[in-house]
Amino acid sequence: MIRTLLEDLTPDRVAAAARRVMARCDELARVTATPGGIERVYLSTEHARVNRLAAEWMREVGMSTRQDAAGNQIGRLAASDRDAPALMLGSHLDTVPDAGRFDGIVGVLMALEVVRLLRVPAPVGEGSLSPLPFALEVIAFSDEEGTRFGKALLGSSAVAGTWDEDWWQLTDADGITLRQAFLEFGLDPGRVGEAARRPEQLVGYLEAHIEQGPELDRRGESLAVVSSIASARRFQLVVEGEARHAGGTPYDMRRDALLGASEAALAVERICSGEHHVIGTVGQLEAFPGAVNIVPGEARFSLDLRGEFDESRDRVWSAISRDLDAVMGRRGLRWRAREVHNAPAVMCAPLLQDVVREGIRGALPEAPGDPATLFSPAGHDGMSMGAITGVGMLFLRNPDGISHHPDEAVSAGDVALGIRALAESVLHLGAEPR
Amino acid sequence: MIRTLLEDLTPDRVAAAARRVMARCDELARVTATPGGIERVYLSTEHARVNRLAAEWMREVGMSTRQDAAGNQIGRLAASDRDAPALMLGSHLDTVPDAGRFDGIVGVLMALEVVRLLRVPAPVGEGSLSPLPFALEVIAFSDEEGTRFGKALLGSSAVAGTWDEDWWQLTDADGITLRQAFLEFGLDPGRVGEAARRPEQLVGYLEAHIEQGPELDRRGESLAVVSSIASARRFQLVVEGEARHAGGTPYDMRRDALLGASEAALAVERICSGEHHVIGTVGQLEAFPGAVNIVPGEARFSLDLRGEFDESRDRVWSAISRDLDAVMGRRGLRWRAREVHNAPAVMCAPLLQDVVREGIRGALPEAPGDPATLFSPAGHDGMSMGAITGVGMLFLRNPDGISHHPDEAVSAGDVALGIRALAESVLHLGAEPR
Repeated sequence: MIRTLLEDLTPDRVAAAARRVMARCDELARVTATPGGIERVYLSTEHARVNRLAAEWMREVGMSTRQDAAGNQIGRLAASDRDAPALMLGSHLDTVPDAGRFDGIVGVLMALEVVRLLRVPAPVGEGSLSPLPFALEVIAFSDEEGTRFGKALLGSSAVAGTWDEDWWQLTDADGITLRQAFLEFGLDPGRVGEAARRPEQLVGYLEAHIEQGPELDRRGESLAVVSSIASARRFQLVVEGEARHAGGTPYDMRRDALLGASEAALAVERICSGEHHVIGTVGQLEAFPGAVNIVPGEARFSLDLRGEFDESRDRVWSAISRDLDAVMGRRGLRWRAREVHNAPAVMCAPLLQDVVREGIRGALPEAPGDPATLFSPAGHDGMSMGAITGVGMLFLRNPDGISHHPDEAVSAGDVALGIRALAESVLHLGAEPR
Repeated sequence: MIRTLLEDLTPDRVAAAARRVMARCDELARVTATPGGIERVYLSTEHARVNRLAAEWMREVGMSTRQDAAGNQIGRLAASDRDAPALMLGSHLDTVPDAGRFDGIVGVLMALEVVRLLRVPAPVGEGSLSPLPFALEVIAFSDEEGTRFGKALLGSSAVAGTWDEDWWQLTDADGITLRQAFLEFGLDPGRVGEAARRPEQLVGYLEAHIEQGPELDRRGESLAVVSSIASARRFQLVVEGEARHAGGTPYDMRRDALLGASEAALAVERICSGEHHVIGTVGQLEAFPGAVNIVPGEARFSLDLRGEFDESRDRVWSAISRDLDAVMGRRGLRWRAREVHNAPAVMCAPLLQDVVREGIRGALPEAPGDPATLFSPAGHDGMSMGAITGVGMLFLRNPDGISHHPDEAVSAGDVALGIRALAESVLHLGAEPR
């Protein structure tokens, strides 16, 4: 059975699937809150519109569809054993502001094509079935980026059953709470728990995504297995000194908070550079009172730390903290940090890594050596899903590593290779003894 | 006549004058755009309110009053020769954000007390006259700090006739142009030239001001003669790199504008520290787009450079420019600087330095040695006034050198000594052969 299905993955069918994915990326890009750009946020009219489109496309490949209690759009292709658990394939359809057209989206559309390539006619009655010992589900998560409410992974957190009641009070830029937005979208906040899946309902979660980094492009390779999704911590830091007159205060009397923050930003770069697979970014920095002729008495900045492993990430934070103690002590400054986000690394399931690796080998039979294995410094829905099931990820080459930007790209050729690799991965998983 | 007036400067009168100055500093501090702090900017409702108060206090000591075409509040006490030129005494009433209550303000209020102490009844009709061969004017400049439009000394530039038509397009934080703000305040932009004074109308400009530095406090002295007002240049700098995803962009692909700006801020400190009597300050810095998970593609910051002499100040700017070329080149960044302010050092007039020195000796007859002579790294209205008349300045001790800060202070005792010194300075100037 697996062999027959593999043989059915003809180059023509896969190429047609990739063309459809590219065309639908363009079609979804037109559903935007900002004409001329791409922006689709959680619980917006654009969210509703892309869910309707995704549902239509799910039914077209024989799936039954539903929108869950958190606004995620789900399609299901049952196995012949109607009670069999499901392998969930998917990604997200929401975007950052001024986004590209592939981040998340391409993973949902590729999953639909995998279902189209693998489905078999139901032996009795109408419709299609999964040919595998598990159902196939395609999920289009409703919020991964966190653009609207500042909290990422809302859609997958609902599915993982890790929704936090405190989130109802989160507000968007217009002061609308998450609770209000649920109601306005037609969802019942009291029923969000119904979106949660139980571990025994799932075989695993498998996602294709553009790399959002330059590694594959640099290596000249199309696809990679993902080993883990980065461990991340975010901090808001405050440095306090003393605001003084810029003319009258000699250097030996200054306690300049901005100079302390400048040293801190450079220390982050220096310390992270010395640690393997840890990267830190100061994306926000502001000096107060912020007058041209006043020595800054306060500086505030953000720190985003990501690492392949929790240990190295935490070691770097300790080193940064020690460095800041020294810098601020020498300058007569005080500093403090508030942790605003802490997500442990999610290690991809070894079995799912193996089948993705086999899938890539199948798609690229001529490639020398093992497929690339990368860790993902960027966050993904798998970070939530890891709480209830094994997670696997396939990365697609992302030219120059540009993402979260209108220039974000992926080639149709790499999408075709990715569809083939993802389909083969699913077939290999189906062949595993359970 | 001079001798009589000197004898009239009794300790009781001077002490009462100092008490009134301190009380009025408190009263003016309550006129603020930010409750709980002090902020009064050019052409605001607070500006109008303090002008009305100052006008009332000017009339109370017998002066005729007017608000000039740039919003400066002026009081005049004519000499017996109605056509005699005027000695202008004063300072400014505008503030930085979150200001103290003395910078500028105390100089205006001390000038009013000097008029009160020196005025004589008009021999015919009502009112008072200047007892000297020149009129006495008190001027409350409307904009010295440049808080609202980023350009300092707007008020005194109008009086000096050095107003620049380009300034009309300067905008405040809300995008309001200087032209609009003039109109909203009730001033006619087309008539700003009427604020200009001709050199022959003036005998000189004499200002009392807190030191805005720690030198007198360190020496344990109350008053100083000012030798020169610092040479100053201000720049707005922009560093351009590339905004990229914080997770997916390795350090060797980053062109992080904020790290370039951080190195620049530290270079300013390092280079200025190596040059005698030059000081540089980065008071504003901001990163764009300013998201926690995006590598900054742009950073903007200010640079305020001051030196005792133009030459050393310019030498430092050249050294900073060379350093920025190296830093930005190494990091793949571009940088540019727009000069927004350039004021040569203003040397105080020798005659006015002499009479201020005599005034300090009169106020502190027991003090050993010569009064302290300091240069002012801070800018003052005298920088503009030097274009049309001789400038003299008297500094008052400023505990710990704290200014542009709510903790800014001056003691009532030093204000009393300053009022006496300033009054005696005016009398000594009146006794000079003309």
